[in-house]
Amino acid sequence: MSEQTKYLLDESQLPKAWYNINADAPFPPAPVLHPGTKEPVTPDFLSVLFPMSLIMQEVSTERWIEIPEPVREVYKLWRPTPFFRARRLEKALDTPAHIYYKYEGASPVGSHKPNTAVAQAFYNKEEGVQALTTETGAGQWGSALSMACNFYDLDLEVYMVRASYDQKPYRRIMMQTFGADVYPSPNERTQYGSALLAADPKSPGSLGIAISEAVEAAATSGGTKKYSLGSVLNHVLLHQTVVGQETLDQLEMAGEYPDFLIACTGGGSNFGGFAFPFLHQNFTNGKDTTVIAAEPAASPTLTRGKYTFDYGDTAKMAPIIKMHTLGHDFVPPSIHAGGLRYHGMSPQVSALVNHGYVEARSVHQLATFEAAKTFTRAEGIIPAPETTHAIAVAIDEALKCKKSGEEKVIVFNFSGHGYFDMTAYDAYLKGDLRDYDYPAQAIKEAMQKLPQID
Amino acid sequence: MSEQTKYLLDESQLPKAWYNINADAPFPPAPVLHPGTKEPVTPDFLSVLFPMSLIMQEVSTERWIEIPEPVREVYKLWRPTPFFRARRLEKALDTPAHIYYKYEGASPVGSHKPNTAVAQAFYNKEEGVQALTTETGAGQWGSALSMACNFYDLDLEVYMVRASYDQKPYRRIMMQTFGADVYPSPNERTQYGSALLAADPKSPGSLGIAISEAVEAAATSGGTKKYSLGSVLNHVLLHQTVVGQETLDQLEMAGEYPDFLIACTGGGSNFGGFAFPFLHQNFTNGKDTTVIAAEPAASPTLTRGKYTFDYGDTAKMAPIIKMHTLGHDFVPPSIHAGGLRYHGMSPQVSALVNHGYVEARSVHQLATFEAAKTFTRAEGIIPAPETTHAIAVAIDEALKCKKSGEEKVIVFNFSGHGYFDMTAYDAYLKGDLRDYDYPAQAIKEAMQKLPQID
Repeated sequence: MSEQTKYLLDESQLPKAWYNINADAPFPPAPVLHPGTKEPVTPDFLSVLFPMSLIMQEVSTERWIEIPEPVREVYKLWRPTPFFRARRLEKALDTPAHIYYKYEGASPVGSHKPNTAVAQAFYNKEEGVQALTTETGAGQWGSALSMACNFYDLDLEVYMVRASYDQKPYRRIMMQTFGADVYPSPNERTQYGSALLAADPKSPGSLGIAISEAVEAAATSGGTKKYSLGSVLNHVLLHQTVVGQETLDQLEMAGEYPDFLIACTGGGSNFGGFAFPFLHQNFTNGKDTTVIAAEPAASPTLTRGKYTFDYGDTAKMAPIIKMHTLGHDFVPPSIHAGGLRYHGMSPQVSALVNHGYVEARSVHQLATFEAAKTFTRAEGIIPAPETTHAIAVAIDEALKCKKSGEEKVIVFNFSGHGYFDMTAYDAYLKGDLRDYDYPAQAIKEAMQKLPQID
Repeated sequence: MSEQTKYLLDESQLPKAWYNINADAPFPPAPVLHPGTKEPVTPDFLSVLFPMSLIMQEVSTERWIEIPEPVREVYKLWRPTPFFRARRLEKALDTPAHIYYKYEGASPVGSHKPNTAVAQAFYNKEEGVQALTTETGAGQWGSALSMACNFYDLDLEVYMVRASYDQKPYRRIMMQTFGADVYPSPNERTQYGSALLAADPKSPGSLGIAISEAVEAAATSGGTKKYSLGSVLNHVLLHQTVVGQETLDQLEMAGEYPDFLIACTGGGSNFGGFAFPFLHQNFTNGKDTTVIAAEPAASPTLTRGKYTFDYGDTAKMAPIIKMHTLGHDFVPPSIHAGGLRYHGMSPQVSALVNHGYVEARSVHQLATFEAAKTFTRAEGIIPAPETTHAIAVAIDEALKCKKSGEEKVIVFNFSGHGYFDMTAYDAYLKGDLRDYDYPAQAIKEAMQKLPQID
């Protein structure tokens, strides 16, 4: 008998609602504070940046929020995504563990990011917004929002971290193919960018800086432009929960339930979208899956950061949220997993880690590429540098099973493929990649600039 | 009611046999000739380059050839591939036509090429071969065979056209990630390459030259290495027929049958694998689908070449076959569709065109990228430059339907995604791409060097 490798869902099995963990998390959400007054923000303040429907989702405690039919129709271009049993990887590791992965690389832009990009573009269009602004690091998020804005006939301004803009042109070209305007950040188009360039004309930029520029561009547009964020916020993680819901259904097809559930974390949207539907089962259905957030040792927000109030961006224009943070001034070392180089973290994920419902682990860069090579030579697909963090932890657990002889079920999210990141593999194969020590001094200095909140 | 977009097959519906058109084509195959003696080749001569099982497939007239179970097991890593109704493209074109496409970009290396790479690696391994040699242009074929050799623990030497090796590193890195040795061609490792470099140390290479080097490397290895070709030959097209067979099943799910079936053609493997199962229906089942081969105007083998005997490679080491050819010395202009830049064509496809069973059309480069932009902005996925040729013809037919009001069913093969070809899109968006006139003089000169066959 031949062994099954893929578990596919029909379009009719595409989830009809997003799952909101705020309905079930056994602790109240922390308030979001105004960056100037440090008082809880009003919907009015947020409405400069976001359409009201997304603000309502941000604060909702409804368990299920219906996915609008036009959003589901676009999702169907690539969803439901496939779910794989990694039988060849199991054999390569000689482990009794059962390893599964959800494949979000199947989206047209190659990652999970369009799940929220499409929803955000839809709601903005519905409220009459004409254009969006956003930031992007290596370009995963920017390309997803470019595709979504193209579908809904919205203009888009992308502030792309200068270092990536110059060195990784492929995703920039993809954004432009969808019709987006892409600017290297820092950029003279914004006051904040101009000031930074005056001080350092060769500034390579950072994600925190690019967020500040995109926020400024929307806030000063006189209402014609809104801002869109690809991670961190509750409504973003909410939209990603289609991933975990599909995975639950596909595991049922496989007749298994996870002992370990693993996803990589930068701002938290990939992790949240994958894990929250399983935490729902842990909270309300007597399940006890070990849920693991995998992050880079060079940007160890959950494992080494402080759980406190901090700004979401470098210029202190974005709201203050309670989260694990390395300090809004901290610029992580230049690891290739650009999507995980963020000083902060989703407040929901942070609270879950803080309360012990989620375990966080950090992985060094070389170990992640070693894991990626093992995975690719077994399964064929080349993972994005972000995804390699989840793979490294999954392989660790599978090797523990080899030692113990236990037949655990290990499930991870393959958040994106690495076809735009081949230069990282080139560096790895040539021996040019390095690990980074814990950036203790930089984090210590950044921590001294945390906002003072009572 | 929501409209269906995707048609998915379960793993159990993966074809169990390849379809061999030599069983049904209403004309006999032309003989394959020895490049030296110009007499029909013997299996002994071919066995220097290929394992006996593939030689037997090359000359077989059996209609169905069973797919070995270990090959089907590897196919299952990505097969069956999805089949889409392009509803958003139909709306964008405002056409009554129904447009469908098969998505071969779903394979780990992003194209249809692994369908034969895996089979060839399997049969070579089975006969005790230790290493393969091959050539690659932009790298689609090289990356497919690298993956396959990695799966079967075979060494692989890839001769990659120097211009691509230097300018398009992403696929080279992918090959190396799978463990292949990749050499720029021409290369001093071969006699032929050394001679070319002595005459022109900066030679950018060509596909014909790279084939010669890979053939030489195998032929002079003393039996330890065999040669593998990614297109043109009968057994290669045979292995690709899983694509057309799945498409037939998926069209049945959709309740439709094609009026037009379209695929791009370079050496013919993508076209043959997609079209032959439909030609089987035309030949034996009373169907009359119009089957169209789409090729570049800059390398117009089927539309402007001569149907005659010619060498498969530049150094005249490969067998002589009867095909549409522009002359084995002809080097096509540097269009971005590297996989379609070949002077010759599959003998099976050539004969089908010659006998009027297949229609050939050529498309200019700018028109193909214009079509790609229209497709991508509607459907999200970015096509490889090769695939854009099929899209351009499909859109042409859909626009004819708009004019005539006819509700025709148009089905094309999306042979690969363009995520490794973004620099081509960059050039297109910047207005730097150009069309090429029919290269009349170069082809005329090359035609004078055809072998003299009675």
